[in-house]
Amino acid sequence: MDCTEKRIDGEVKYKGVIVAVHLDRAELSNGKIVKREVVEHPGGVTILPVDENGLCTMVRQFRYPFGRMMLEAPAGKLEPGEDPKESAVRELSEETGYTADEWIDFGACCTSPGFSSEVLHVYLAMGLHEGRSHPDEDEFLNTEKIPLSELSRMVMAGEIDDAKTIVAVLKAEKYLSERAAK
Amino acid sequence: MDCTEKRIDGEVKYKGVIVAVHLDRAELSNGKIVKREVVEHPGGVTILPVDENGLCTMVRQFRYPFGRMMLEAPAGKLEPGEDPKESAVRELSEETGYTADEWIDFGACCTSPGFSSEVLHVYLAMGLHEGRSHPDEDEFLNTEKIPLSELSRMVMAGEIDDAKTIVAVLKAEKYLSERAAK
Repeated sequence: MDCTEKRIDGEVKYKGVIVAVHLDRAELSNGKIVKREVVEHPGGVTILPVDENGLCTMVRQFRYPFGRMMLEAPAGKLEPGEDPKESAVRELSEETGYTADEWIDFGACCTSPGFSSEVLHVYLAMGLHEGRSHPDEDEFLNTEKIPLSELSRMVMAGEIDDAKTIVAVLKAEKYLSERAAK
Repeated sequence: MDCTEKRIDGEVKYKGVIVAVHLDRAELSNGKIVKREVVEHPGGVTILPVDENGLCTMVRQFRYPFGRMMLEAPAGKLEPGEDPKESAVRELSEETGYTADEWIDFGACCTSPGFSSEVLHVYLAMGLHEGRSHPDEDEFLNTEKIPLSELSRMVMAGEIDDAKTIVAVLKAEKYLSERAAK
Protein backbone atom coordinates (compact mmCIF):
# COMPACT_ATOMS: atom_id res chain seq x y z
CA MET A 1 0.00 0.00 0.00
CA ASP A 2 1.40 3.43 -0.91
CA CYS A 3 1.29 5.42 2.31
CA THR A 4 3.47 8.33 1.25
CA GLU A 5 2.27 11.78 2.30
CA LYS A 6 3.46 14.59 0.05
CA ARG A 7 3.99 18.04 1.58
CA ILE A 8 2.08 20.77 -0.29
CA ASP A 9 2.87 23.81 1.83
CA GLY A 10 3.01 24.89 5.42
CA GLU A 11 3.53 27.64 7.91
CA VAL A 12 5.49 28.15 11.10
CA LYS A 13 2.91 28.49 13.88
CA TYR A 14 5.33 28.91 16.76
CA LYS A 15 9.06 29.45 17.06
CA GLY A 16 10.35 29.10 20.60
CA VAL A 17 13.51 28.46 22.55
CA ILE A 18 13.72 24.70 22.10
CA VAL A 19 10.92 23.76 19.71
CA ALA A 20 9.15 25.18 16.69
CA VAL A 21 5.75 24.07 15.43
CA HIS A 22 4.98 23.77 11.71
CA LEU A 23 1.51 23.18 10.34
CA ASP A 24 1.71 21.67 6.85
CA ARG A 25 -0.84 20.62 4.27
CA ALA A 26 -0.02 17.20 2.83
CA GLU A 27 -1.58 15.00 0.17
CA LEU A 28 -2.38 11.38 1.05
CA SER A 29 -2.06 8.56 -1.49
CA ASN A 30 -5.84 8.68 -1.99
CA GLY A 31 -5.60 12.33 -3.08
CA LYS A 32 -7.10 13.70 0.12
CA ILE A 33 -5.51 16.82 1.62
CA VAL A 34 -4.77 16.66 5.36
CA LYS A 35 -3.09 18.87 7.94
CA ARG A 36 0.10 17.64 9.58
CA GLU A 37 1.43 19.23 12.74
CA VAL A 38 5.17 18.85 13.35
CA VAL A 39 7.07 19.84 16.48
CA GLU A 40 10.63 20.51 15.29
CA HIS A 41 13.33 19.69 17.84
CA PRO A 42 17.15 19.83 17.43
CA GLY A 43 17.59 16.26 18.71
CA GLY A 44 19.95 15.10 21.38
CA VAL A 45 22.03 12.42 23.00
CA THR A 46 21.69 10.03 25.94
CA ILE A 47 24.64 8.34 27.59
CA LEU A 48 24.65 5.48 30.09
CA PRO A 49 28.04 5.56 31.85
CA VAL A 50 28.83 2.17 33.44
CA ASP A 51 31.95 1.65 35.55
CA GLU A 52 33.98 -1.54 36.03
CA ASN A 53 31.75 -2.55 38.97
CA GLY A 54 28.53 -2.21 36.96
CA LEU A 55 27.62 1.08 38.66
CA CYS A 56 25.81 3.59 36.43
CA THR A 57 25.97 7.33 37.03
CA MET A 58 22.46 8.73 36.71
CA VAL A 59 21.02 12.22 37.05
CA ARG A 60 17.96 13.21 39.04
CA GLN A 61 16.43 16.49 37.96
CA PHE A 62 13.17 18.43 38.00
CA ARG A 63 11.13 18.00 34.84
CA TYR A 64 8.81 20.93 34.43
CA PRO A 65 6.18 19.29 32.16
CA PHE A 66 5.57 16.70 34.91
CA GLY A 67 6.23 18.91 37.95
CA ARG A 68 8.46 16.33 39.61
CA MET A 69 11.96 14.92 39.84
CA MET A 70 12.87 12.17 37.38
CA LEU A 71 15.75 9.70 37.38
CA GLU A 72 17.40 9.64 33.96
CA ALA A 73 20.57 8.74 32.13
CA PRO A 74 22.76 11.80 31.41
CA ALA A 75 21.47 13.54 28.28
CA GLY A 76 21.38 16.79 26.40
CA LYS A 77 20.42 18.58 23.23
CA LEU A 78 22.56 18.72 20.11
CA GLU A 79 24.06 22.12 19.40
CA PRO A 80 23.63 23.39 15.82
CA GLY A 81 25.81 21.35 13.47
CA GLU A 82 27.18 19.20 16.28
CA ASP A 83 28.08 15.55 15.65
CA PRO A 84 26.11 13.21 17.99
CA LYS A 85 29.24 11.48 19.30
CA GLU A 86 30.94 14.83 20.07
CA SER A 87 27.77 15.95 21.80
CA ALA A 88 27.70 12.76 23.89
CA VAL A 89 31.32 13.29 24.97
CA ARG A 90 30.51 16.91 25.90
CA GLU A 91 27.28 16.13 27.78
CA LEU A 92 28.84 13.24 29.73
CA SER A 93 31.65 15.52 30.86
CA GLU A 94 29.31 18.43 31.69
CA GLU A 95 26.85 16.38 33.74
CA THR A 96 29.11 13.80 35.40
CA GLY A 97 32.72 14.93 34.88
CA TYR A 98 33.57 11.61 33.19
CA THR A 99 35.60 10.95 30.10
CA ALA A 100 35.27 7.47 28.60
CA ASP A 101 37.71 5.21 26.71
CA GLU A 102 35.00 3.06 25.13
CA TRP A 103 31.83 4.25 23.42
CA ILE A 104 29.19 1.81 22.16
CA ASP A 105 26.69 3.34 19.75
CA PHE A 106 23.19 2.01 20.55
CA GLY A 107 21.66 3.80 17.57
CA ALA A 108 18.94 6.38 17.20
CA CYS A 109 15.63 6.64 18.99
CA CYS A 110 12.69 8.66 17.64
CA THR A 111 10.84 9.72 20.76
CA SER A 112 7.43 10.65 19.27
CA PRO A 113 7.43 10.00 15.50
CA GLY A 114 3.71 10.81 15.21
CA PHE A 115 4.23 14.52 15.79
CA SER A 116 7.87 15.33 16.67
CA SER A 117 11.13 15.30 14.71
CA GLU A 118 13.18 14.65 17.86
CA VAL A 119 15.88 11.99 17.45
CA LEU A 120 18.04 10.91 20.39
CA HIS A 121 21.35 9.12 19.85
CA VAL A 122 21.95 6.60 22.63
CA TYR A 123 25.40 5.52 23.84
CA LEU A 124 26.96 3.24 26.40
CA ALA A 125 30.15 4.74 27.89
CA MET A 126 32.73 2.52 29.57
CA GLY A 127 36.35 2.79 30.66
CA LEU A 128 35.46 5.86 32.71
CA HIS A 129 37.88 8.45 34.10
CA GLU A 130 36.73 10.90 36.75
CA GLY A 131 36.91 14.64 36.22
CA ARG A 132 35.08 17.74 37.31
CA SER A 133 31.47 18.15 36.19
CA HIS A 134 30.43 21.54 34.89
CA PRO A 135 26.67 21.68 34.30
CA ASP A 136 25.15 24.59 32.41
CA GLU A 137 24.21 27.58 34.52
CA ASP A 138 20.64 27.03 35.81
CA GLU A 139 20.94 23.29 35.22
CA PHE A 140 20.22 21.83 38.64
CA LEU A 141 20.85 18.14 38.83
CA ASN A 142 22.02 15.57 41.32
CA THR A 143 24.05 12.56 40.24
CA GLU A 144 23.59 9.10 41.78
CA LYS A 145 25.42 5.82 41.27
CA ILE A 146 23.09 2.87 40.85
CA PRO A 147 23.92 -0.72 39.78
CA LEU A 148 22.77 -1.60 36.25
CA SER A 149 20.90 -4.63 37.66
CA GLU A 150 18.94 -2.34 40.01
CA LEU A 151 18.17 0.09 37.16
CA SER A 152 16.86 -2.84 35.14
CA ARG A 153 14.62 -3.87 38.05
CA MET A 154 13.36 -0.28 38.37
CA VAL A 155 12.61 -0.16 34.64
CA MET A 156 10.62 -3.40 34.73
CA ALA A 157 8.75 -2.27 37.87
CA GLY A 158 7.77 1.02 36.20
CA GLU A 159 9.82 3.06 38.71
CA ILE A 160 11.85 4.54 35.86
CA ASP A 161 9.50 6.02 33.27
CA ASP A 162 11.73 8.17 31.06
CA ALA A 163 11.73 6.61 27.58
CA LYS A 164 15.38 7.26 26.68
CA THR A 165 16.52 5.89 30.04
CA ILE A 166 14.44 2.71 29.63
CA VAL A 167 15.96 2.25 26.16
CA ALA A 168 19.53 2.86 27.38
CA VAL A 169 19.22 0.55 30.43
CA LEU A 170 17.59 -2.40 28.61
CA LYS A 171 19.93 -2.14 25.60
CA ALA A 172 22.96 -1.95 27.92
CA GLU A 173 21.88 -4.95 29.97
CA LYS A 174 21.27 -7.06 26.85
CA TYR A 175 24.47 -5.91 25.13
CA LEU A 176 26.69 -6.53 28.17
CA SER A 177 25.17 -9.94 28.92
CA GLU A 178 25.69 -11.03 25.30
CA ARG A 179 29.26 -9.69 25.33
CA ALA A 180 30.03 -11.51 28.59
CA ALA A 181 28.72 -14.78 27.09
CA LYS A 182 31.17 -14.62 24.16
CA MET B 1 19.43 20.06 46.41
CA ASP B 2 16.04 21.71 45.95
CA CYS B 3 15.38 21.63 42.21
CA THR B 4 11.71 22.54 42.26
CA GLU B 5 10.58 25.03 39.64
CA LYS B 6 7.48 27.02 40.60
CA ARG B 7 5.16 28.18 37.83
CA ILE B 8 4.50 31.93 37.99
CA ASP B 9 2.30 32.43 34.93
CA GLY B 10 2.15 31.46 31.29
CA GLU B 11 0.41 31.78 27.99
CA VAL B 12 -0.82 29.45 25.28
CA LYS B 13 1.38 30.12 22.24
CA TYR B 14 -0.22 27.56 19.91
CA LYS B 15 -3.30 25.38 20.07
CA GLY B 16 -3.43 22.78 17.32
CA VAL B 17 -5.05 19.50 16.42
CA ILE B 18 -2.86 17.19 18.50
CA VAL B 19 -0.58 19.43 20.52
CA ALA B 20 -0.67 22.78 22.26
CA VAL B 21 2.37 24.83 23.29
CA HIS B 22 2.48 26.77 26.56
CA LEU B 23 5.22 29.21 27.44
CA ASP B 24 5.42 29.64 31.21
CA ARG B 25 7.55 31.72 33.51
CA ALA B 26 8.89 29.68 36.41
CA GLU B 27 11.00 30.46 39.45
CA LEU B 28 14.07 28.32 40.14
CA SER B 29 15.20 27.43 43.66
CA ASN B 30 17.87 30.16 43.40
CA GLY B 31 15.17 32.77 42.81
CA LYS B 32 15.94 33.22 39.13
CA ILE B 33 13.02 33.51 36.73
CA VAL B 34 13.23 31.29 33.62
CA LYS B 35 11.00 30.49 30.65
CA ARG B 36 9.69 26.96 30.28
CA GLU B 37 8.22 25.72 27.02
CA VAL B 38 5.78 22.81 27.29
CA VAL B 39 4.27 20.86 24.42
CA GLU B 40 0.98 19.52 25.78
CA HIS B 41 -0.06 16.14 24.35
CA PRO B 42 -3.09 13.98 25.31
CA GLY B 43 -0.90 10.88 25.82
CA GLY B 44 -1.48 7.47 24.37
CA VAL B 45 -1.03 3.72 24.45
CA THR B 46 1.29 1.17 22.84
CA ILE B 47 0.44 -2.52 22.64
CA LEU B 48 2.71 -5.41 21.68
CA PRO B 49 0.42 -8.31 20.67
CA VAL B 50 2.29 -11.66 20.87
CA ASP B 51 0.65 -14.91 19.77
CA GLU B 52 1.27 -18.46 21.08
CA ASN B 53 4.09 -18.92 18.54
CA GLY B 54 5.92 -15.76 19.60
CA LEU B 55 4.78 -13.83 16.52
CA CYS B 56 4.14 -10.12 17.10
CA THR B 57 1.72 -8.14 14.95
CA MET B 58 3.37 -4.86 14.03
CA VAL B 59 2.28 -1.88 11.95
CA ARG B 60 4.29 -0.15 9.25
CA GLN B 61 3.14 3.38 8.51
CA PHE B 62 4.30 6.66 7.06
CA ARG B 63 5.58 9.08 9.69
CA TYR B 64 5.33 12.60 8.37
CA PRO B 65 7.97 14.25 10.64
CA PHE B 66 10.56 11.81 9.24
CA GLY B 67 9.18 11.46 5.70
CA ARG B 68 9.46 7.67 5.74
CA MET B 69 7.77 4.44 6.75
CA MET B 70 8.43 3.19 10.29
CA LEU B 71 7.89 -0.21 11.86
CA GLU B 72 6.10 0.18 15.19
CA ALA B 73 4.01 -1.63 17.74
CA PRO B 74 0.29 -0.79 17.42
CA ALA B 75 -0.41 2.49 19.20
CA GLY B 76 -2.78 5.41 19.44
CA LYS B 77 -3.74 8.54 21.31
CA LEU B 78 -5.96 8.62 24.37
CA GLU B 79 -9.38 10.09 23.77
CA PRO B 80 -10.51 12.73 26.29
CA GLY B 81 -11.23 11.08 29.64
CA GLU B 82 -10.38 7.63 28.31
CA ASP B 83 -8.81 5.03 30.61
CA PRO B 84 -5.44 3.80 29.25
CA LYS B 85 -6.45 0.12 29.38
CA GLU B 86 -9.73 0.81 27.53
CA SER B 87 -7.78 2.81 24.98
CA ALA B 88 -5.33 -0.08 24.50
CA VAL B 89 -8.19 -2.55 23.93
CA ARG B 90 -9.75 -0.15 21.40
CA GLU B 91 -6.51 0.60 19.51
CA LEU B 92 -5.48 -3.06 19.33
CA SER B 93 -8.85 -3.93 17.81
CA GLU B 94 -8.83 -0.95 15.41
CA GLU B 95 -5.34 -1.55 14.08
CA THR B 96 -5.07 -5.36 14.12
CA GLY B 97 -8.57 -6.76 14.70
CA TYR B 98 -7.37 -8.63 17.79
CA THR B 99 -8.99 -9.00 21.14
CA ALA B 100 -6.76 -10.33 23.95
CA ASP B 101 -7.45 -12.50 27.01
CA GLU B 102 -4.33 -11.43 28.88
CA TRP B 103 -3.02 -7.88 29.34
CA ILE B 104 0.31 -7.19 31.05
CA ASP B 105 0.78 -3.56 32.09
CA PHE B 106 4.38 -2.51 31.36
CA GLY B 107 3.86 0.91 32.94
CA ALA B 108 4.15 4.43 31.67
CA CYS B 109 6.79 5.94 29.43
CA CYS B 110 7.44 9.70 29.22
CA THR B 111 8.69 10.18 25.68
CA SER B 112 10.38 13.61 26.03
CA PRO B 113 10.16 14.85 29.61
CA GLY B 114 12.35 17.87 28.89
CA PHE B 115 9.68 19.62 26.86
CA SER B 116 6.59 17.42 26.35
CA SER B 117 3.85 16.17 28.66
CA GLU B 118 3.27 13.06 26.51
CA VAL B 119 2.90 9.82 28.49
CA LEU B 120 2.48 6.48 26.73
CA HIS B 121 1.07 3.47 28.55
CA VAL B 122 2.72 0.28 27.31
CA TYR B 123 1.03 -3.14 27.31
CA LEU B 124 1.79 -6.70 26.31
CA ALA B 125 -1.31 -8.45 24.89
CA MET B 126 -1.52 -12.26 24.81
CA GLY B 127 -4.22 -14.88 24.34
CA LEU B 128 -5.17 -13.25 21.04
CA HIS B 129 -8.41 -13.79 19.11
CA GLU B 130 -8.67 -12.67 15.51
CA GLY B 131 -11.30 -10.20 14.35
CA ARG B 132 -11.72 -7.54 11.75
CA SER B 133 -9.49 -4.47 11.92
CA HIS B 134 -11.13 -1.11 11.42
CA PRO B 135 -8.52 1.65 11.24
CA ASP B 136 -9.59 5.28 11.38
CA GLU B 137 -10.45 6.86 8.07
CA ASP B 138 -7.21 8.24 6.54
CA GLU B 139 -5.12 5.93 8.74
CA PHE B 140 -3.04 3.99 6.22
CA LEU B 141 -1.10 1.18 7.77
CA ASN B 142 0.11 -2.28 6.88
CA THR B 143 0.34 -5.01 9.51
CA GLU B 144 3.17 -7.56 9.58
CA LYS B 145 3.82 -10.58 11.79
CA ILE B 146 7.40 -10.75 13.03
CA PRO B 147 8.89 -13.09 15.69
CA LEU B 148 9.72 -11.38 18.99
CA SER B 149 13.29 -12.69 18.74
CA GLU B 150 13.70 -11.02 15.33
CA LEU B 151 12.23 -7.75 16.65
CA SER B 152 14.74 -7.87 19.49
CA ARG B 153 17.59 -8.36 16.99
CA MET B 154 16.26 -5.42 14.91
CA VAL B 155 16.10 -3.23 18.04
CA MET B 156 19.69 -4.03 19.02
CA ALA B 157 20.89 -3.48 15.43
CA GLY B 158 19.21 -0.05 15.33
CA GLU B 159 16.81 -1.18 12.56
CA ILE B 160 13.87 -0.31 14.79
CA ASP B 161 14.22 3.27 16.03
CA ASP B 162 10.79 4.15 17.42
CA ALA B 163 11.19 4.68 21.17
CA LYS B 164 7.88 3.15 22.32
CA THR B 165 8.49 0.07 20.14
CA ILE B 166 12.02 -0.40 21.53
CA VAL B 167 10.58 -0.16 25.06
CA ALA B 168 7.74 -2.62 24.32
CA VAL B 169 9.98 -5.19 22.59
CA LEU B 170 12.77 -5.21 25.19
CA LYS B 171 10.34 -5.24 28.14
CA ALA B 172 8.34 -8.08 26.52
CA GLU B 173 11.45 -10.17 25.85
CA LYS B 174 12.71 -9.74 29.42
CA TYR B 175 9.29 -10.31 30.99
CA LEU B 176 8.55 -13.46 28.96
CA SER B 177 11.99 -14.96 29.52
CA GLU B 178 11.69 -14.39 33.28
CA ARG B 179 8.18 -15.86 33.28
CA ALA B 180 9.33 -18.94 31.33
CA ALA B 181 12.16 -19.50 33.84
CA LYS B 182 9.73 -19.70 36.77
